Amino acid sequence: GRIHLDGWNFSDSTPGIAAFNNPADPADPENRFEFRRLRIGVSGDIKDNMLYKFEYDFGNPGDPAFKDVYIGWKDLPVFQTLLIGNQKRPLGMDHLNSSRYNTFLERPLVIEAFNEDARRLGIAAYGVSEDETWNWRYGIYNLENIASDGTYVGDAGQMSVNGRLAGTPWYDETSGGRGYLHLGIADMWAHPDGDVVEPSSDNNEARFRTRPEARTGSVRWLNTGRIAGADWFNTLGFEFMLNIGSFSVVSEYQVTNVGRGNDGPDLTFDGAYVQAAYFLTGEYQPINRRTGTIARVKPLENFFLVNTCDDGKAGGWGAWQIAARYSYLNLTDADITGGDERNFTFGMVWWWNSHARLQFNYIHAQIDDRGPIDGFTGGRSNIFGARFMVDF
Amino acid sequence: GRIHLDGWNFSDSTPGIAAFNNPADPADPENRFEFRRLRIGVSGDIKDNMLYKFEYDFGNPGDPAFKDVYIGWKDLPVFQTLLIGNQKRPLGMDHLNSSRYNTFLERPLVIEAFNEDARRLGIAAYGVSEDETWNWRYGIYNLENIASDGTYVGDAGQMSVNGRLAGTPWYDETSGGRGYLHLGIADMWAHPDGDVVEPSSDNNEARFRTRPEARTGSVRWLNTGRIAGADWFNTLGFEFMLNIGSFSVVSEYQVTNVGRGNDGPDLTFDGAYVQAAYFLTGEYQPINRRTGTIARVKPLENFFLVNTCDDGKAGGWGAWQIAARYSYLNLTDADITGGDERNFTFGMVWWWNSHARLQFNYIHAQIDDRGPIDGFTGGRSNIFGARFMVDF
Amino acid sequence: GRIHLDGWNFSDSTPGIAAFNNPADPADPENRFEFRRLRIGVSGDIKDNMLYKFEYDFGNPGDPAFKDVYIGWKDLPVFQTLLIGNQKRPLGMDHLNSSRYNTFLERPLVIEAFNEDARRLGIAAYGVSEDETWNWRYGIYNLENIASDGTYVGDAGQMSVNGRLAGTPWYDETSGGRGYLHLGIADMWAHPDGDVVEPSSDNNEARFRTRPEARTGSVRWLNTGRIAGADWFNTLGFEFMLNIGSFSVVSEYQVTNVGRGNDGPDLTFDGAYVQAAYFLTGEYQPINRRTGTIARVKPLENFFLVNTCDDGKAGGWGAWQIAARYSYLNLTDADITGGDERNFTFGMVWWWNSHARLQFNYIHAQIDDRGPIDGFTGGRSNIFGARFMVDF
Repeated sequence: GRIHLDGWNFSDSTPGIAAFNNPADPADPENRFEFRRLRIGVSGDIKDNMLYKFEYDFGNPGDPAFKDVYIGWKDLPVFQTLLIGNQKRPLGMDHLNSSRYNTFLERPLVIEAFNEDARRLGIAAYGVSEDETWNWRYGIYNLENIASDGTYVGDAGQMSVNGRLAGTPWYDETSGGRGYLHLGIADMWAHPDGDVVEPSSDNNEARFRTRPEARTGSVRWLNTGRIAGADWFNTLGFEFMLNIGSFSVVSEYQVTNVGRGNDGPDLTFDGAYVQAAYFLTGEYQPINRRTGTIARVKPLENFFLVNTCDDGKAGGWGAWQIAARYSYLNLTDADITGGDERNFTFGMVWWWNSHARLQFNYIHAQIDDRGPIDGFTGGRSNIFGARFMVDF
Repeated sequence: GRIHLDGWNFSDSTPGIAAFNNPADPADPENRFEFRRLRIGVSGDIKDNMLYKFEYDFGNPGDPAFKDVYIGWKDLPVFQTLLIGNQKRPLGMDHLNSSRYNTFLERPLVIEAFNEDARRLGIAAYGVSEDETWNWRYGIYNLENIASDGTYVGDAGQMSVNGRLAGTPWYDETSGGRGYLHLGIADMWAHPDGDVVEPSSDNNEARFRTRPEARTGSVRWLNTGRIAGADWFNTLGFEFMLNIGSFSVVSEYQVTNVGRGNDGPDLTFDGAYVQAAYFLTGEYQPINRRTGTIARVKPLENFFLVNTCDDGKAGGWGAWQIAARYSYLNLTDADITGGDERNFTFGMVWWWNSHARLQFNYIHAQIDDRGPIDGFTGGRSNIFGARFMVDF
Repeated sequence: GRIHLDGWNFSDSTPGIAAFNNPADPADPENRFEFRRLRIGVSGDIKDNMLYKFEYDFGNPGDPAFKDVYIGWKDLPVFQTLLIGNQKRPLGMDHLNSSRYNTFLERPLVIEAFNEDARRLGIAAYGVSEDETWNWRYGIYNLENIASDGTYVGDAGQMSVNGRLAGTPWYDETSGGRGYLHLGIADMWAHPDGDVVEPSSDNNEARFRTRPEARTGSVRWLNTGRIAGADWFNTLGFEFMLNIGSFSVVSEYQVTNVGRGNDGPDLTFDGAYVQAAYFLTGEYQPINRRTGTIARVKPLENFFLVNTCDDGKAGGWGAWQIAARYSYLNLTDADITGGDERNFTFGMVWWWNSHARLQFNYIHAQIDDRGPIDGFTGGRSNIFGARFMVDF
């Protein structure tokens, strides 16, 4: 399980942001406290080579959602591990990384826009090469996010085929992984139903949208809307990560093409981010070579402060990490004006121990090229966020 | 806990089905994927001879429900086990059987119509004879299903008195129970409030309805509606099950009489089913003699497929079972035209091991004598369903 | 976890009660069965001196809520224990007492009115003197109850500062605590946003209301409404408890002052209760000296009734306690006419063992000075309640 408690401050926004934040009645985003994640779950093995996992998020008790919910087999020939159920689509390293380990509070614009909430109902295989240099995942997934109602209803076969190949062609075994180069490539080919007029039971899933790398309300500041006539879309993504001791740099680029047949010209949306991070206290960011995702950081000294027997005090400082991220997303093409956004984020992480930390982010967001709302096509916002986090 | 993941296909229905499925705006039932059950719970003993159980279903996160939630005592004189709380009413062997063990995906029409969702708030005693030949349950229950809100509000005492006596007069101890005859009789006498005009807080619980042994939306294809003026109803049920080695046959019949005093003539509804099942791989269906319900099947060889040390493959086939069911329900009498239905179902169960299986059902449903909706009094539908299932 | 199952009977009320119970369409309160609490949770230690707790209430599956949800540190210098998250505000001993241990089914009018549902998002320190004679808690809290949605949205800083000092200046160590005197003082200084016109996202939290020490619907019989222009309010509380063997007497008094600046005269609301309880079977009510709250009662003999090996019966009677409470609350001052109420309650508790009991309450409620609803300013109600309770 995990407990993530956030505080967000949106003290400084231009009028365009108020329009994007609440188109019906323009209103500046308001400050908030929020249990971002409250998760508990069970997982385990069933006889022979079967397994299951079942995890729930109760951060908003009025709108609970499930996360990983699957059953499957491991140690299979050919497929290795095969899982059936709700699981992360393999698109975007930052989405495959656990929120327990990610450096910044929220995921980059492009990662969230092209793979919103990541988990979908599907069947997927997970493999790794014998020397752990390469790992892969591939599967077919339903396009609708059913985390809040557990059900997909619709005669249309809104499915996607996804695949990802990743690896660490350079991995310094001598230092236990303090140096490595991670590369990855992923693709999603999707077949939304493309209805121009939507029936109530089955929405057209060709829609790309995202929050500004911060927790706003449910209205997304960038949003293409459901794209009428979209028969298919394809998202291609590239991953790069280089870690040298306490320093790491990560970059991803993704491009989505949407086909609308006779309903309009094809569309291209894309985005990218690059981030650098450094541990002031000497730790390093490990990688899990079997999954191609970052792993748990272990501070050299835990944070603590206690009275000692001889009436003194003893303490430790934990680990301190600083980070910066530049993020870009373009959701405007032809008649679809979802907007484009460039964010600069400064981050700080205070690791109390391997299972608890405090994160702080300052975000400067710039939005342009949005289809006009209340006359505005762009806006600027300065955002501060902090998160207390433990997992158990 | 348990994870049940379904796929349903309703590709072939006549127009009457569309009318029954959505009377306001006739629409064919749509295909669906669905987490049918996602349950976790806790249970245990409290000091001396007390016990508790608390189980939740999160299959639809937006509409969670509790299942067994009770406290009680065991080893009591006279009562043996006495439970207070939400628990299954003893009516219909197929409802008392766990969904983990039942042969078909969904319960028979008559079982679900006369004991919808089975569990009610009540106080009940559970007993068994010393040689385990006979077992019984009896208690009083509230008539409203409070699984979704935890509260019954109403001055009217909408209660029922229920009892069931079951047993295995023939049980082949030598073979460990590979042969047995199960017989049972159960009765529910209920006192709904019979309001003709309903207050908002307390609905008249004299209503009988059911889905077509498949997962459709919330509108039931057969439905008497809430029967105005119903002062009482009584449901009498008979159970028969014969198991000889890998072969079993089960049948139940239930009849419900409803009294309306001066508000209309008394009513009679009834239904039955008969099913036969056979294990192609030699297993048998055990019975629990202390509860009068079927027990967990143990495959002779589990299903598995793994790479062996010497680069070969090893595997096992699990258990395979085939089954057929004929099911009948009549909810039309006098001015109440809930409809009648006859279903034929072919089923297949692939037991991967004692805690995991895959089920497949083909259902042909025939509805007639329904009060006309959009001009239709009957319809036909062909339905396919499959379920992945584990419990832990 | 805990399971609390209630039955409530409101058979006898005057017409004014119907008006207060449902102002839109006067209706007598209806009888009800209810899972009052269904809680499960996890808690534990994280490395070094960190800890976490996460508890959920699923008594109403359609409206789940979290209870204690926090992370923190223990054994700190100065602060001792420091917790961040959803936790009880230190105001009113009866609210700090667990519902597992409280003598009566529901908390006194004044306790619930001035500290509705007790838990808020905050950061607080918990300390105790070395000889355990004195303990204290203090912290800052958000004013909104976020147990049902996990989020506070609002630019206004609706916060309170709270503190409580309690102790047992007399504590009879020789008898293991069968005699003690508990004294406590607590204060809350709050800064609601005082909006006269309310925005949708952030309600004015200057509102005091309560149910009649019984489970009615969501409309409170006493209610000041959200007080327009309230800039601040302060609640001061005093606690007294004396325990001598099997006999205990408890009393609390609280007074709330509300400042409205130019929007109206300042307001004063207050209330108190006094209760006495006696164990007929010789047990006593222990106190937890580290927290200043009552602790678990251990019956001298558990309740049980079993068949013995020699065909006899063996049993024990458990513990029996009788209690009476007089309770008073005044929410009417100047133009705010929330009403005043005087309740007399007779209570009985049958402790089956240390973790299970049955409670019974008879309540006579008298309401007066309520702003007229449907012409009524007062009413009388006789209420019966019973609760089955286990915790595990």
